[in-house]
Amino acid sequence: MNEHRYSEDEIAAVYRVIRERRDMRHFAPGPLPAGLIERLIDAAHHAPSVGLMQPWRFIRITDSNLRGRIQTHVDDERRATAAILPSRNDEFLKVKVEGIRDCAALLVAALMHGREPHLFGRRTLPEMDLSSLACAIQNMWLAARAEGVGLGWVSFFDPNVIAQFLNMPVGAKPVAILCLGPVASFYPRPMLEEIGWGKRLPVSEILFENGWPEDAKPTPTAY
Amino acid sequence: MNEHRYSEDEIAAVYRVIRERRDMRHFAPGPLPAGLIERLIDAAHHAPSVGLMQPWRFIRITDSNLRGRIQTHVDDERRATAAILPSRNDEFLKVKVEGIRDCAALLVAALMHGREPHLFGRRTLPEMDLSSLACAIQNMWLAARAEGVGLGWVSFFDPNVIAQFLNMPVGAKPVAILCLGPVASFYPRPMLEEIGWGKRLPVSEILFENGWPEDAKPTPTAY
Repeated sequence: MNEHRYSEDEIAAVYRVIRERRDMRHFAPGPLPAGLIERLIDAAHHAPSVGLMQPWRFIRITDSNLRGRIQTHVDDERRATAAILPSRNDEFLKVKVEGIRDCAALLVAALMHGREPHLFGRRTLPEMDLSSLACAIQNMWLAARAEGVGLGWVSFFDPNVIAQFLNMPVGAKPVAILCLGPVASFYPRPMLEEIGWGKRLPVSEILFENGWPEDAKPTPTAY
Repeated sequence: MNEHRYSEDEIAAVYRVIRERRDMRHFAPGPLPAGLIERLIDAAHHAPSVGLMQPWRFIRITDSNLRGRIQTHVDDERRATAAILPSRNDEFLKVKVEGIRDCAALLVAALMHGREPHLFGRRTLPEMDLSSLACAIQNMWLAARAEGVGLGWVSFFDPNVIAQFLNMPVGAKPVAILCLGPVASFYPRPMLEEIGWGKRLPVSEILFENGWPEDAKPTPTAY
């Protein structure tokens, strides 16, 4: 018997939230539960970070003019993406890729400036700082889902533009616009599967043994 | 009342695992619970991915010679890192940064090849593929902790060397060596805090409002 193992009910809750977390773009009116943002930031701050670097910074957007400028910029970037897709451009433009205007709260997640001196675990893989921030956001995502609140990670933006909007110092870099709020329902499957945009790969295509199979293929694009 | 909210016990389990997850380097003898790796891969495969890209690939290392070569390479990289630290070099060399030899199971996590055509959410932020993979690893980490099993993410390696060891195609990139196994105990706090290497930042230094404060500082390095 493993003394470190959680109870069966706790283990089931952890697997449940992993399965039911969704990247949300459709939000419902209403406020967030009291203290939710503080709990989510605390969850994020308990993520692993390379060399205890804690490169994550979160900017809460409470100014409605600023929210509007961010939304307009994201919409421009969405159209720029549509223009370079080799096919399905019109179909892509019908996909809802963000809920910035409708969500109860908006956060921007960024990598801090002054990252270069952090060498622990980053000599050959400097991008481990981004990995740490992504783990922090995944913690927030899971905690929000358990609390019945939707979260969406939007990456349709030019980081230089958002950095300028938010007065970021040179070297800091925004990597996520996080939409947070009540939802009417969580998608039963990832939204892009639900609407028939793409498919989940079978496990045999993502798990190998001792080396990369000669015939392994990358995930096909949907366009 | 929010119908999507989990029970209080389930919510507590989610916050508990987020708080108690640790990046483990010290492993105990013994096998993994039956089916654990399959459950962790399934948890990883339920992570969010930009444009449903699913860029994650996992290679299980069951060949002991291959494990030995990986361990030797990681040890070389650890020494190379020590050599470039501006101070605390000897102290760094005493920090245990990996448990490759002792852990019950070893996996390498990599980004797939052929990522360039995936443009959905990546026109301006191509590194969102790495974010997706990091979220997948965080899912594994949390599930492993709930099951009482340690997981450590090792980033002390040259990705080109590990790619060659594992016969990866051009464009694929290993980003994590994952050590998995029973542990005698989980560190009460992150190991680097426990041994006095670094400190956790106060929340006021990671959460801002509407912009980056002029006096905000990056996380200080510990060396």
